[in-house]
Amino acid sequence: MTTWTTYLEQHRSRYLTELLDLLSIPSISSLPDYAAEVQRAAEWVADRLQRAGLEQVAILPTSGHPVVTGSWLHAPDKPTILIYGHFDTQPVDPIDQWTTPPFTPTIRDGRVYARGASDDKGNMLIPILAVEALLRTQGTLPVNVKFFLEGQEEIGSPQIPAFLDAERERFACDMVISADAGQWSEQQPSIWVGCKGLAGIQIDVQGPHTDLHSGLYGGVLQNPIHALVELLHSMRAPDGTILVAGFLESAHPLSEVDRALIEKVPLDEEAYRNQLGVPALAGEPGYSTLERNWARPTLEINGIWGGFQGAGVKTVIPATAHAKISCRLVAGQEPEQIVDLLTDHVRRHTPPGVAVTVQALPGRARPYLMPIEHPGNQAVHRVLAELYGREPYYIRSGATLPVADLFLRTLGADTVSFGFLLDDEQFHAPDEFFRLASFERGQTAYCRLLAELGR
Amino acid sequence: MTTWTTYLEQHRSRYLTELLDLLSIPSISSLPDYAAEVQRAAEWVADRLQRAGLEQVAILPTSGHPVVTGSWLHAPDKPTILIYGHFDTQPVDPIDQWTTPPFTPTIRDGRVYARGASDDKGNMLIPILAVEALLRTQGTLPVNVKFFLEGQEEIGSPQIPAFLDAERERFACDMVISADAGQWSEQQPSIWVGCKGLAGIQIDVQGPHTDLHSGLYGGVLQNPIHALVELLHSMRAPDGTILVAGFLESAHPLSEVDRALIEKVPLDEEAYRNQLGVPALAGEPGYSTLERNWARPTLEINGIWGGFQGAGVKTVIPATAHAKISCRLVAGQEPEQIVDLLTDHVRRHTPPGVAVTVQALPGRARPYLMPIEHPGNQAVHRVLAELYGREPYYIRSGATLPVADLFLRTLGADTVSFGFLLDDEQFHAPDEFFRLASFERGQTAYCRLLAELGR
Repeated sequence: MTTWTTYLEQHRSRYLTELLDLLSIPSISSLPDYAAEVQRAAEWVADRLQRAGLEQVAILPTSGHPVVTGSWLHAPDKPTILIYGHFDTQPVDPIDQWTTPPFTPTIRDGRVYARGASDDKGNMLIPILAVEALLRTQGTLPVNVKFFLEGQEEIGSPQIPAFLDAERERFACDMVISADAGQWSEQQPSIWVGCKGLAGIQIDVQGPHTDLHSGLYGGVLQNPIHALVELLHSMRAPDGTILVAGFLESAHPLSEVDRALIEKVPLDEEAYRNQLGVPALAGEPGYSTLERNWARPTLEINGIWGGFQGAGVKTVIPATAHAKISCRLVAGQEPEQIVDLLTDHVRRHTPPGVAVTVQALPGRARPYLMPIEHPGNQAVHRVLAELYGREPYYIRSGATLPVADLFLRTLGADTVSFGFLLDDEQFHAPDEFFRLASFERGQTAYCRLLAELGR
Repeated sequence: MTTWTTYLEQHRSRYLTELLDLLSIPSISSLPDYAAEVQRAAEWVADRLQRAGLEQVAILPTSGHPVVTGSWLHAPDKPTILIYGHFDTQPVDPIDQWTTPPFTPTIRDGRVYARGASDDKGNMLIPILAVEALLRTQGTLPVNVKFFLEGQEEIGSPQIPAFLDAERERFACDMVISADAGQWSEQQPSIWVGCKGLAGIQIDVQGPHTDLHSGLYGGVLQNPIHALVELLHSMRAPDGTILVAGFLESAHPLSEVDRALIEKVPLDEEAYRNQLGVPALAGEPGYSTLERNWARPTLEINGIWGGFQGAGVKTVIPATAHAKISCRLVAGQEPEQIVDLLTDHVRRHTPPGVAVTVQALPGRARPYLMPIEHPGNQAVHRVLAELYGREPYYIRSGATLPVADLFLRTLGADTVSFGFLLDDEQFHAPDEFFRLASFERGQTAYCRLLAELGR
């Protein structure tokens, strides 16, 4: 009987052809004109799940782009794994910066260039192919598997929370594995264990009822921009330490284990500084660059405006001044609580002479931290260590991954990241590509991971 | 022989007709389409000077709108007085808020409504009429008189410094009297003794070479808006005290006499606060509202911008942040020196992680302070006290009056303000008007002032 490794080798050429076929569908979720292409990609994926041997294959409508599912549930004593990925893509602008057309997949130097190659069609296809190899060679899977493949990830999955809430029975599982994920480098594997939450406010300062001449009215009243500067200054020390009462206290401190794991991850700070184009890296004292980025909360002014912004001079005391602030949150911090702390801080620090209002901004997200000792992480660790010949790093992200929190809250399941994109693969940019070596290594990795999870 | 008082009474009706005639010329200096109307107003004024009995009447070209002059120089042992005013006007927008058309002068309730009625055609015409009354009734003037009537005041007199420099012989004088001036109220006269200077900078903060995702790059680098907030915070204390080293030290302190004179000027702070629409007045501790406005330097952020300013959320760490600052200066402070102090302050307070540049903004002006005991002020004091039956207030302005400094530097002559506009007369706004009572009282006042100056 053929082993799955042999099967993967024998079908390598067909799998690549299938990848190129999927990549040729311009399933750009953000552009209404391409909605039919997103639908076409969904049909392609559903057909592919069917041909891989999955059952209950369906294209499920949402009020936006659809979700594709399929499952294999014949391992009654084994855990149920929900595999997550997405078949929609980013837009392609600036189109003139592509070496070859974004939806004409082209292989150069062991890489396939196309929009969506790395994020996420290539990575999403991997577990489907792995499942096929296992089913075709063994007639069974080591675990129960469900697929949750969506078509709106690149626009923030607006319909997914309501959809998942309504479909929680169908997607009940013990663990989620996200194929929308990557590794630290070609030689160095990594396990993603957390991301930050998000909460933001807008501060609106109202001074006089109209812009005033800064000479005729100089010195008599509070300038709303100065009042805003004082408010903003009161929220964060010059060294980056957040001063909002209760804010840092609500963040779970980094454990010694956390710090040790982060310290293992190499970062060339000088190269990083150069890449960003700044004279120096900076942030909260007492923490390394990666600790600050991954595991410490931040407060950033995203925008500020007030008064005259044109060329030359207009000497006004403006009627109003405004700022938008967002905070990245870590374990222990709830977005609602942070908005309350910020609002309360502004209220207590408003200087005399102006009226200040605070509005909570949309886009809240809860932080997500995966227990390192989670069985999924342990299985991933064994597979990656064996496959790469070295221990994986435990990494995090300073951004949000709302779907992980959504799965946790709706299904009670943690999300294990298991994907093979690499940071240089130009996702969201021209000339996006995916390494064929990653595509093949991923298939092996998924076969081994399912086996590990079934052990 | 007729007295000048009788002459003024006999010609009151003609004088009013002449005022209405001048006000019907739309001499808007800021609009290129109206340049011919500014020229027409100049011709009207030159003709009127001629008919008043003045000599050497001329329309003098500048590289912009013209200057009109005329003189009477037959009092060899007496001082030479240069009378300043302007015959150009502000634009009329919003035109739909005028009760009657701005260049169709209309009399209602003892007021003439027209653009330029108060600022400055009505006030500018007064000394011409007074000179005519004196010459027609006495055949002589108590002092030598020169007129300097310009057509570009409302656009900042851009060509006047070069023009005056070239014409300094023609306009040599012992004292300037500005008819572009007003009184404290209908019942309460005032003498203007000073205005502030002006200097400004723009601060440009450069962080990373492009806007960055505030999650992916949170905590690793200095946010240019935060850096700008720290810089701005370092320049002025929350209570309004300017913290730039050397800044306050360079300002001449207010003398006890100064403070006593300012304290005599009544200000209804609650009405003023209500008019501005702010919860409280505010400014540098230790000084009254009028002291701060008139006699203490100020530092105001006139504009600030950086990052995302649209609706909703865009969680960026922006590449740049910017602010425009202007300072109002008092005696002892030179604009160039203040720009240097500000630049040096920014340099010394720039936080790590960003690059900051400072550019001096155009529009510098030196402060101007008129000695209270100046003979012109003494003469004005006697005339106003007699005419109003009460002592005039000594007042200042928080704005600039560059022409006063220009006359001082170019001609070596101080500027005495002597005009009759009142603050409620809607200059620069719809329904500008001038009180006919002021128009008539002004004529008497100028006849008396010239007599006082010739004593």
